[in-house]
Amino acid sequence: MRWVRFTAGGRTAYGILEGERIAEVAGDPFRGYTPTATVHALAAVKLEVPVVPPTFYCCGLNYADHIYQMAAKIGREAKLPAKPDVGYRANNALIAHDEAVVIPADASPLVQYEGELVVVIGKRAKHLTPETAFACVLGYTIGNDVSERTWQKSDATLWRAKNADTFKPMGPWIETDLDLDAAQTIVRVNGRETTRFRTNNMIFGIADYLVAITRYMTLYPGDIVWMGTDGLPPNIAAGDTVEVEIIGIGTLRNPFVTERRA
Amino acid sequence: MRWVRFTAGGRTAYGILEGERIAEVAGDPFRGYTPTATVHALAAVKLEVPVVPPTFYCCGLNYADHIYQMAAKIGREAKLPAKPDVGYRANNALIAHDEAVVIPADASPLVQYEGELVVVIGKRAKHLTPETAFACVLGYTIGNDVSERTWQKSDATLWRAKNADTFKPMGPWIETDLDLDAAQTIVRVNGRETTRFRTNNMIFGIADYLVAITRYMTLYPGDIVWMGTDGLPPNIAAGDTVEVEIIGIGTLRNPFVTERRA
Repeated sequence: MRWVRFTAGGRTAYGILEGERIAEVAGDPFRGYTPTATVHALAAVKLEVPVVPPTFYCCGLNYADHIYQMAAKIGREAKLPAKPDVGYRANNALIAHDEAVVIPADASPLVQYEGELVVVIGKRAKHLTPETAFACVLGYTIGNDVSERTWQKSDATLWRAKNADTFKPMGPWIETDLDLDAAQTIVRVNGRETTRFRTNNMIFGIADYLVAITRYMTLYPGDIVWMGTDGLPPNIAAGDTVEVEIIGIGTLRNPFVTERRA
Repeated sequence: MRWVRFTAGGRTAYGILEGERIAEVAGDPFRGYTPTATVHALAAVKLEVPVVPPTFYCCGLNYADHIYQMAAKIGREAKLPAKPDVGYRANNALIAHDEAVVIPADASPLVQYEGELVVVIGKRAKHLTPETAFACVLGYTIGNDVSERTWQKSDATLWRAKNADTFKPMGPWIETDLDLDAAQTIVRVNGRETTRFRTNNMIFGIADYLVAITRYMTLYPGDIVWMGTDGLPPNIAAGDTVEVEIIGIGTLRNPFVTERRA
């Protein structure tokens, strides 16, 4: 099942996507919903970020090739994480499918994409076990963890490097039925494939993170966990369009533009 | 003016505190409100966290003595921050005045308080200047940035060290009229004063942070910025009660207990 959050006629609602049509619901997939008689054509609505989370978790370094290639590029020794330490991103940065990533006026040319699987939490959970971990998962969407690498290196935190307005495209929808082991993440820049990796080839898997997180934190409906990326992305400039496809979910597409300051 | 968020009769609402009485409003201080005829005794309601923010910002190291004393304690060179790099905390950790901080079962004895001024954003803002920065501020409340120091040192991020459930007491209310330069932050453990500092004796002030943040991020109504702490706090154990008072705002009080696992 595919959950879309969309705006039509000035109203934002959730619906279930069936082919190219959206069956609107009253309510939402987190607190409960009932069907309505309203149907929209997918092409006629504006897609919104599928959920604005209470807490926005992210897994930093979670694919071995990304760590090895990044380390080689900057001449440092590669160091794989010893345990699943989660981090945070910020809601101000979220944008929907087809919305523009606005590169800040003073950013360096080292603006890069990171295509990521996003786990969407559907049920409140604490003290999960490997056996129960997936019971709290509503489904999956796609994120692009846009990063400015000079700020990532120079700042004490990742605040502007990864959380500047528009730096967190997410969507296009939530897929509740995903064959994780069959999934591949494919990134295209202006239609040309630049990255491809097995989505589930993680150092620590989804269950590992959910168990670790919920040893200390309560997960709430609508929380999201971005699972990290693989490979070494190229620089993206204004005028480029980045598509992150995860086979089994769909494609998240966003153009990049430059901030205009008065 | 003091804004309280409270629950009475199973309903959560905002109100304006006048002495020991709360004048309930319809709506909230962020999106707008109208008075109601309902009045509550402060002692008869349950205080709630004054706001659950869209984004939860924090200033890490922002008082010189805290940095010097922490560095001396662990035998490292003190390094003052060169610019106001902001960080993040997580909503799952928020608790209200009088609620218990639950120390996780596997925490070390190095659990410590950090008494902090909290800036509450009232209006959407981007590209603030030093002159306009305070126009987006609704008011101020108090935070206790509870920290587990072994995890703070061992983990790749501050996730469980500072964001375990209940590690972010905040309240008791939002004060809109605060003389920042007259404010002092005083922390008491079981009634005994253990920390006192001038609240506004920051390395980077509130305007510095709001200008820096809004160069890249939009601040939204309800966002909060925790301004950091001074001094070197002692360890807190189950059974202790910590009060953080900021003169001109009020007192945030929380007992500490230990997690019980089945």
